[in-house]
Amino acid sequence: MSEQLTFPASSAAALEPHLPPPRSSLSSSATTDTRPGATASPHHGSEAHRPFVTLTFATSLDSTLALAPGVRTRLSGAESKAMTHYLRSRHDAILVGVSTVLADDPGLNCRIAVAGAETETHAERLRLQPRPIVVDPRLRWTPRRADKVLELARAGAGLAPYVLTAVAEADVPPESAALLREHGGKYIHIESSTITTSTAAAGEGTHDGEETPDTRPRFRWEDIFAALAAEGLTSVMVEGGGQVINALLHPSCQGLVDSVIVTIAPTWLGQGGVVVSPERVTDAQSGEPVAAARLSGVSWLPLGEDVVLCGKLHP
Amino acid sequence: MSEQLTFPASSAAALEPHLPPPRSSLSSSATTDTRPGATASPHHGSEAHRPFVTLTFATSLDSTLALAPGVRTRLSGAESKAMTHYLRSRHDAILVGVSTVLADDPGLNCRIAVAGAETETHAERLRLQPRPIVVDPRLRWTPRRADKVLELARAGAGLAPYVLTAVAEADVPPESAALLREHGGKYIHIESSTITTSTAAAGEGTHDGEETPDTRPRFRWEDIFAALAAEGLTSVMVEGGGQVINALLHPSCQGLVDSVIVTIAPTWLGQGGVVVSPERVTDAQSGEPVAAARLSGVSWLPLGEDVVLCGKLHP
Repeated sequence: MSEQLTFPASSAAALEPHLPPPRSSLSSSATTDTRPGATASPHHGSEAHRPFVTLTFATSLDSTLALAPGVRTRLSGAESKAMTHYLRSRHDAILVGVSTVLADDPGLNCRIAVAGAETETHAERLRLQPRPIVVDPRLRWTPRRADKVLELARAGAGLAPYVLTAVAEADVPPESAALLREHGGKYIHIESSTITTSTAAAGEGTHDGEETPDTRPRFRWEDIFAALAAEGLTSVMVEGGGQVINALLHPSCQGLVDSVIVTIAPTWLGQGGVVVSPERVTDAQSGEPVAAARLSGVSWLPLGEDVVLCGKLHP
Repeated sequence: MSEQLTFPASSAAALEPHLPPPRSSLSSSATTDTRPGATASPHHGSEAHRPFVTLTFATSLDSTLALAPGVRTRLSGAESKAMTHYLRSRHDAILVGVSTVLADDPGLNCRIAVAGAETETHAERLRLQPRPIVVDPRLRWTPRRADKVLELARAGAGLAPYVLTAVAEADVPPESAALLREHGGKYIHIESSTITTSTAAAGEGTHDGEETPDTRPRFRWEDIFAALAAEGLTSVMVEGGGQVINALLHPSCQGLVDSVIVTIAPTWLGQGGVVVSPERVTDAQSGEPVAAARLSGVSWLPLGEDVVLCGKLHP
């Protein structure tokens, strides 16, 4: 069994204002939650057109996620890792771009130790697991039985992924669909769009940070989040990679993001890595560059050698 | 008279472990300081071959100093500005690359309010001012009477700069030398070197972040700091711009830096700005990229909306 992580209650309390409501009040079960605020979150409209969206990632001081695409880069400390798993326990879903799946073979499960979990049933423990969401318009990922995310699903230590794709249901390889289905996952078809702003859409370059030509299918983020809402997923933690993060930091998408949680490690990785930096934004009148994104209501929480920055984007 | 800034004593206390000894014990006067530690700083050897070097700058979350070279970019808040001026009061000298002088026309003085300063003499107040040092191998800067740094020197609100240049004394334009001398500044000749690692030297690209061809004269940082020590300057705060910072963060120079103080504002400026990120470093054996620089003994100090990171580089 893989290592269990613990996250201090004091740190959890500091994060609380930046998180969606506890999952118990937001489950997709048929029971009606009558607690105040349960149906009208202050964070986004009560219409379930999209989940609560938390954007979270860890960078170096030079805003780099990894030394190179696919290179696992130890950036943040043990405390930050525990925080990531705590955050996963607080969201119905975690979302990554297909490039991250291809580069990292991530587990995408939650390994936080929960008090009393030993006495819970298998089903109850699984309820804490977030649903992995893979954004894969052209189906670049062919799931294999040995993929970590499927291994964990078989072991009851995680959920199988939902893969969002522009490929029509009839054109999805039947063996892939069967493999996901066997583990409890599935493909979800979303219409792709032709839109003008390249980074405002969920593209799928051959690796993070690469420019994506406009001819490839891409999704509108509104459609992605609507698809999650339609699955009863009321909160999603967007974890990466670089393209996904940069897209959501762009002014055209900032209104879709409820909370941003960034871990910064006191390291400079150096030039040439996978960088978080949104597309340049210019003032419509003057043509001069302006800041692309700014957080408000920020908290800086030192965590081991790292710092955790929480805030809201204001478009 | 320009605005005076105040910096809270509590914040100053938090910075203290990351600063050189108080200037009163380190003045270049002829009096001998007999206090413990005055001649043998724990931070660097007691030989005065170089001053205590503090590297300090402010970036966005995407490690950007400015939206574009020469574009004044409001990044950090009022508290951070006051901190910069407090830090200046604690150093004998502040150093910038010539690109910063050409781009920003900076004042390079200290505007921190000091208790009791009203009753001090003009000379005593000037003693708090740091000496501006401009690294200008090829003399790209032609000082003018209207330059802010000279205006402030005339007004008794700052010191005139020392300009470090590879140009021989006989070849410095006499009117430039006379203008600096009139204000109390001067040119200091340093031999330039031909060295292999491009960013490890103090170059002088046409603007920050531009690659500098190897044919231009450049200084070894050891020579720069030795020149300052020879002037009796026992501490220097290196403020920028991008090229200077990236050079000092490179492993070949990290041993010259005693303290690093970075202010981070909760903003993403977006791609295409002046970026702090040292040259890529690869492992000699494997050829794989490795982290270029890491801080140890770090403190994260929230300051207004920003955070201030203090630490030491360990090569």
